[in-house]
Parts: sequence; structure tokens; C-alpha cells
Amino acid sequence: MTELARRTGPTSRVRVVESSSDRDRPREDQVAAEEPLEIRVAAPGVQARRAWVTMRTPGHDFDLAAGWAFHEGIVGSASLLEVAYCTDEDLTAEQEFNVVTVRASAPVDLGHRHEGLSAGSSACGVCGKDSIEAALAIVRGARWTGPEPHSAVVRRLPELLREQQSVFARTGGVHAAGLFTADGDPHVVREDVGRHNAVDKVSGARLQAGESPADAFLVVSGRAGFELVQKAVAAGVGSLVAVGAPSSLAVHLARQAGLGLFGFTRAERTVRYS
Amino acid sequence: MTELARRTGPTSRVRVVESSSDRDRPREDQVAAEEPLEIRVAAPGVQARRAWVTMRTPGHDFDLAAGWAFHEGIVGSASLLEVAYCTDEDLTAEQEFNVVTVRASAPVDLGHRHEGLSAGSSACGVCGKDSIEAALAIVRGARWTGPEPHSAVVRRLPELLREQQSVFARTGGVHAAGLFTADGDPHVVREDVGRHNAVDKVSGARLQAGESPADAFLVVSGRAGFELVQKAVAAGVGSLVAVGAPSSLAVHLARQAGLGLFGFTRAERTVRYS
Repeated sequence: MTELARRTGPTSRVRVVESSSDRDRPREDQVAAEEPLEIRVAAPGVQARRAWVTMRTPGHDFDLAAGWAFHEGIVGSASLLEVAYCTDEDLTAEQEFNVVTVRASAPVDLGHRHEGLSAGSSACGVCGKDSIEAALAIVRGARWTGPEPHSAVVRRLPELLREQQSVFARTGGVHAAGLFTADGDPHVVREDVGRHNAVDKVSGARLQAGESPADAFLVVSGRAGFELVQKAVAAGVGSLVAVGAPSSLAVHLARQAGLGLFGFTRAERTVRYS
Repeated sequence: MTELARRTGPTSRVRVVESSSDRDRPREDQVAAEEPLEIRVAAPGVQARRAWVTMRTPGHDFDLAAGWAFHEGIVGSASLLEVAYCTDEDLTAEQEFNVVTVRASAPVDLGHRHEGLSAGSSACGVCGKDSIEAALAIVRGARWTGPEPHSAVVRRLPELLREQQSVFARTGGVHAAGLFTADGDPHVVREDVGRHNAVDKVSGARLQAGESPADAFLVVSGRAGFELVQKAVAAGVGSLVAVGAPSSLAVHLARQAGLGLFGFTRAERTVRYS
């Protein structure tokens, strides 16, 4: 086994050995790149400070940082001033591109993020009801006020998402999320090794384009757990459409928030949970 | 749409509508339960305090708490004194079973977990190299010193894991992890909506049985990202076998730590990355 040969943006080439019952075959493979990203938040009168660290696939880093801060209720679409790579002198060249600062034009509340709780989970309660209340309390986006979802459109969405997954096609190793109109037209699609990051990236892309992420459909390539529903609710989308299964708390939150929730979605069928 | 009908341990029943091209069919469905769990850590002279909150599938909560604390380097197998549900008087009945305290017999280092960084990610560096160094620094387990993995055994492992997945069979919505001997015999299998939680649960189960989690194989039903490799390294297993793809940083860490890493594993073939 040799070291990782070189970095190629969202993918890396590696030497591997593929084994079947009759032989071992050395070959080259592409894997999805994964690197830590530190997100800092700055506000009027407050110096930039570390708010979160996540493992992500490099690329669309500003989308990720902006979308994460939006979904967490830290910035709204009006108070997102700027997103930029950090330029601290003590960072190495590699580190520099793994630190992004989100600058808000209004005071921000980093809340429980400073008690070692939030990274990876916004849950601050210790029962499902608390978690749902906390999720509903941080909604900052515009609400979707369009038509009811058509199941014929819903069933086409996973295939439409897959058509735009360039990194997945090469590595088989990333999740995707996309925002689509009520007619199934894609607005933006993003990929990441982390399912939650992919959702942050699509919302952040819309915000940075000066638009609301409150589209008809948020489509995800994996399952729909509580945190993905939480982000969909915060983004104000009409429905969350998942290829995989939802969890109990995801169903519960979607129903309370009036979010459409579809699971096990493919061309032949979909299951509506909310 | 009605409310969640009732709780049934690791699954919940919900009313859904299944839509295909020719009809909409209301029916009952089972979804994987998801609830927040707060993990507190106590040590000699130190009161129990909140170290992490994660969304998890209820069941095997002590395994999850013990395994998480072990993988994070907070407790070793010798210093794990007790795991118990919290009995604070101000907790409601529902909350009580969502708070678990891990008691150590030796002083603990909660480190950066108190700076809002760790939950969901142990990365404290901001480049891959830092993350790998941090991962290697917290290894607490015994190391696997057994034979090299046989690809014929490796290729059988995902099917052996699936045979033991009772919650997945009902919901299609949970991940699994299992520890297996070099011959492919299962030691322990656990399920959870969170991939990382399932791995924490298997290591915790072994630790609570007074045994080391340093088995020949750790098998996971999903992909192998950095954090799963990190847990496999901390647990001291011989090889991590994934059904899905590894990431670049996962490959890099596995090679540095001397961990076998297999991806895209099924009966016909497996790909060895390390």
C-alpha cells in the first residue's frame, strides 16, 4: 500500500487491491475527499470565533458555512454579510482553506454551541419534545406557500438528483442534496461525504445568490433523520424527499412543522409520512 | 395524518400513504425510533457533567455511552467504573431514560469537548494531518495482534451482519455494526439510526462484558468515513470492513494506524484500501 497519491479537489486517487473469489487485482481507485472545516462566526463588535468543526468534502465551502449558520438560526438571509477564508497569519497554507468565517451584520446568538453540545446536533433537550421545540424555535427562513406536492413529481426526484451527482459517479462515496421546484426542475445540487453538509451547501448556495432556500422540494440521497428534517424546516422548504427511511422523531417534527416528508422514494413508489 | 401512534422500543408505528403511479394506499408502517441521549461523565472528585448529546435509537444506551467515552479516550477498559441512568429529581420520566452517566475510576480529560467542538466530530485540528495526529493520540485499547484478514472471510461479513439486524428488517432505517472473529463468528452486533452510535454500542457492549473490543473485524453497514476509522483505531480492531465507500482521510488514517480497511464489500468482491 502506498500513500495517497495526490489530491484532486473533491476526490483523491488511491492504490487498492480488489479481491474476488478467483483473484486479487491491484488497481487505482478514486475516493471522495474528506477534510475538516472550521466555521467561525463574526458579528458587529464580536471577533470571529470558532463555532463548529465538521468533516466535509472540500468544495463549495462558503455554501457549507453559510448554510450551516442559517440552519442553526445564527444568521438570517438579511443578516448574512460575508463569507471568507480565514487569513490569520499563523495558519499554514493547507489550514487556511479549512477555516471559513461567516460575518453577520446583526448580533448573533451562539447559545449552547459553547457548552460542547451542538456540533453535529442542535439538540439541547434531553427528550424528543424538547428537541422538537428547540428545532421549531430557530426557524429563520421564508415559508413555502406553494402548491401541494404531486407524487408523480416526487417519484422522479431521486433520479433527477442522481443525474447531477458528478462526484458520486466517480467514487460511489458521497451523499447529495438538491433543491427542486414544484415541477421537478433543479435549482441547486451539492455533494458531500456528510449528508448534513450536502443540505447545508444547497441552502448556503441559494442564500449566497441572494435567494431563499424555501423551494418546493429538498431531495436527499440517504435517510431522513431528525437533523435533516430540522434543516428542511429551518430552510422553509415545502417537502423533504428521501431515498431512504425516516426516523420516528423526524416524522414527529415534520408533522408539527407542517413539512411534507417522503421516504423510500423511487420511480415506482414513494411513502408519505407527513 | 395522525400523530405517532405509540412507542415500541427501537421502532414506532406510524400511519403513512404509499403512492405508486396507479393509486394511493394508506397503511401502517414501522420507523426506527430516534431520541436524544445526553451522556454525562463523572470522575473522582468531579461531579457528573454533560459531555455530549447525540440522537440515537433507544436500547443498549449503556453500551452507547461506555463505547463513546472509550472511543473518545475519556475512559479506558480499566477505568470504566459504572454506567447508569441519571436519577436527578428535576428530570421527567421521559428525560430520565435519555440521560446516562459514565463514571470513571480515574481522572478524565474532557479536553476540547467543552469548547463546542467535539459532538459529532473529534476533530480539533483544521487540516487532515492534525486530525490524524489527534486520532492517533487518543488510542486507549488493546491492539489486534492476530492473523492477516482473509478476503474470503471479509466478503462473507456483510451478509453475516445483515442476518442479525432485527430492527433493519422491520424499518429499513437503521445502520448496524458488529465485531467478528478472524473466522467470521459474530461477537456482538448493534443497530442504531446513527452509524457512529452503532459502532459505539458494539465497543461498549464488549467493555461492559469485561472484554476488549479489539476483535479481528469491525463490520459496518454503511460507508467508512474518518470518524468510523478513528473509532476502529481507538478500539484496536484488526480491520474495518464497510459495505460502502471510504473517504480519503479514512484511507490515510487507516494506513498510518496499521488498520486494515475494506470498502464496497459484498459476497462477490471487496476492495482493500489499507
